[in-house]
Amino acid sequence: MTDDVETQPAPGVAPRHLAPGEVGLVAPHDFVCAEPFIFKSGQTLPGFTLRYETYGALNAARDNAILICHALSGDHHCAGWHSADDKKPGWWNNLIGPGKAVDTGRFFVICANVLGGCQGSTGPSSVNPETGRPYGVAFPFVTILDMVRAQKLLLDHLGVASLHAVIGGSMGGMTALQFSITYPAFTRRVLAMATTSREGAQAIAFNEVGRQAIMQDPDWNRGDYAKGGGPRVGLAIARMMAHITYVSDASMDRKFGRRKKDSAAGDAYNFDVQFEVESYLRHQGQAFINRFDANSYLYITRALDHFDLAQAHGSLEAAFAPVQAETLAVGFTSDWLFPPEQNRTIAHALLRAGKRASYAELSTDLGHDSFLLESEELYALVRSFLERQEPPVFDFSI
Amino acid sequence: MTDDVETQPAPGVAPRHLAPGEVGLVAPHDFVCAEPFIFKSGQTLPGFTLRYETYGALNAARDNAILICHALSGDHHCAGWHSADDKKPGWWNNLIGPGKAVDTGRFFVICANVLGGCQGSTGPSSVNPETGRPYGVAFPFVTILDMVRAQKLLLDHLGVASLHAVIGGSMGGMTALQFSITYPAFTRRVLAMATTSREGAQAIAFNEVGRQAIMQDPDWNRGDYAKGGGPRVGLAIARMMAHITYVSDASMDRKFGRRKKDSAAGDAYNFDVQFEVESYLRHQGQAFINRFDANSYLYITRALDHFDLAQAHGSLEAAFAPVQAETLAVGFTSDWLFPPEQNRTIAHALLRAGKRASYAELSTDLGHDSFLLESEELYALVRSFLERQEPPVFDFSI
Repeated sequence: MTDDVETQPAPGVAPRHLAPGEVGLVAPHDFVCAEPFIFKSGQTLPGFTLRYETYGALNAARDNAILICHALSGDHHCAGWHSADDKKPGWWNNLIGPGKAVDTGRFFVICANVLGGCQGSTGPSSVNPETGRPYGVAFPFVTILDMVRAQKLLLDHLGVASLHAVIGGSMGGMTALQFSITYPAFTRRVLAMATTSREGAQAIAFNEVGRQAIMQDPDWNRGDYAKGGGPRVGLAIARMMAHITYVSDASMDRKFGRRKKDSAAGDAYNFDVQFEVESYLRHQGQAFINRFDANSYLYITRALDHFDLAQAHGSLEAAFAPVQAETLAVGFTSDWLFPPEQNRTIAHALLRAGKRASYAELSTDLGHDSFLLESEELYALVRSFLERQEPPVFDFSI
Repeated sequence: MTDDVETQPAPGVAPRHLAPGEVGLVAPHDFVCAEPFIFKSGQTLPGFTLRYETYGALNAARDNAILICHALSGDHHCAGWHSADDKKPGWWNNLIGPGKAVDTGRFFVICANVLGGCQGSTGPSSVNPETGRPYGVAFPFVTILDMVRAQKLLLDHLGVASLHAVIGGSMGGMTALQFSITYPAFTRRVLAMATTSREGAQAIAFNEVGRQAIMQDPDWNRGDYAKGGGPRVGLAIARMMAHITYVSDASMDRKFGRRKKDSAAGDAYNFDVQFEVESYLRHQGQAFINRFDANSYLYITRALDHFDLAQAHGSLEAAFAPVQAETLAVGFTSDWLFPPEQNRTIAHALLRAGKRASYAELSTDLGHDSFLLESEELYALVRSFLERQEPPVFDFSI
């Protein structure tokens, strides 16, 4: 997902984080699980940490929690500001806050950095207690199921009795679906956007090129590098390429077109930055290497590659058989990474499995990242899905 | 464009190159121009070589020539075999031959490796006579116009009086359009497929990521490397990524889906090749570095970036004002690199400029490379466009 939204108050204007509808200043917390964790691969960790944030308050019935699941390059900081002079708020701040579509006045909202991540949760850049050095590629292989199981332990720790909803886009959508399959009685609503029930060949292909860019960088050193070092060139290349897949031809053309960095100059005959889109991409690559760990990138893309609900359960209908949640799948017309059809497929399979599900398709020309961007249409959809009454449960027994 | 079609006769079967409809064994030739060549950038070469092939014979009127223009990674070898045990024929062999859509029984077909290329024509890997070493980044910057001007000199050398047609896809389509603008009286028909009149932001972005992968490879050494050496890792990464843009989600899913290399194994928890699509992409990257020069890749992608007919002439209609050719633009529904609209735009601008033009859109799910692949519908379209009678020229003067 993109990270180019900067929000800075004008001088003399009240800080954005104090405005109505904002969750304001927030701080992350660490959940330390000291129990051994067994991964799907069979590998184990003696324990793990998840870094998370919460907004709003858990009600007395402990049933008003909403879990937000982040995408590949996201983190736990999805709303509010960490300090008054933060340049930008959490990545889904437009959706989450008092009175917003995900209303923190009503719901207890939780977001955790995934297991295998690099923003405070245990991952390949964490120190292996056995060696005193970062795990690197000795870290256990992570799957979406592992991420979900770790987050369930966090929810238990927070005293959440059941989830009002689990919400995510892209990888976050896979996580949300997996949650409703693994913990059916715990999960009442699923909102999965711009996602898929199985990573297809094209998405695996893009992931593989990114991994090759990282692993062929001599500074990768088979995953063994000091924090802040490592394959910075390879990771930047991987990010630049991935970034193109998050947007669309139309949005790039509108934002940059063929504009030159130096509009006064004519055609420059060299390989330096000439077009604004080149400058923007290089900035995306450079910003990313300062906040993301290359090994985490390898692990999380591999988790995406392995995600295939139909294969894991025999069929998509079989995968969804245990689901009790009502599911809303949302596709975006210009998303070519996880196209609308792949989201519609989720809803249709749920319906075939006899579940409550619906599909909404939003017309946008902003590509995959549409789920992150301002859209009153999306806000209205999310709000009504979260706030409408649950259908009554008829009990015909005597 | 892809290069994964292998054609090898079964034992005991007559060699493919002797079959009816095939141009058979062919050999490249070198056109050596000893006159100084001034590039659009103002830089010069004391002379240059174009490697080319021809099939069929020039007629007495010297007006039955068809120029084939190749794409970014293509070359002059577009039909026939170089030896009886060649694994595969020229890259457009399915289209070109006696009795085929581009009928070498009727037409004199010419194809040259572009100026700036690396398949025998003068380019950055050629030896700079002043230094005795490859030019590297001291080579003049090449534009599509420069490529066209060099090819016109070849056609003059071959005694071609006028072109029956100029045909190309992708970059070849740009070259074909440029030909009809620069040499209007010389060019009677233009067949431009899967192309654009201006490189858009997304295409520039992909080119830039490829260039960064090359230029950030320590073995690039600012373009100074021995032939066969250089940034092999970066070039392979660039090619792997570009390859994805040449195909489609649907075609990759049909060809590879999520099939594993070792179908007997379960999920493998490592970063080695697991999916067939990964293996295929790595093969594409490795095959490419053995036949393509990284500096040529930089130069030719930059030529693509600079291509914008509207900007060069004030408007697309102004660009097409001198055109005398009849133009057929062909778009392919699944081409997301140069989508159908960009091809339709070409025909519409020509029509607005008062020219003879039409647009055909072919439904395929094979992506950008559709123009290279077997399609009876495309063959019929090409054949009828090339063979139908030219409209009579009415002379109302007395």
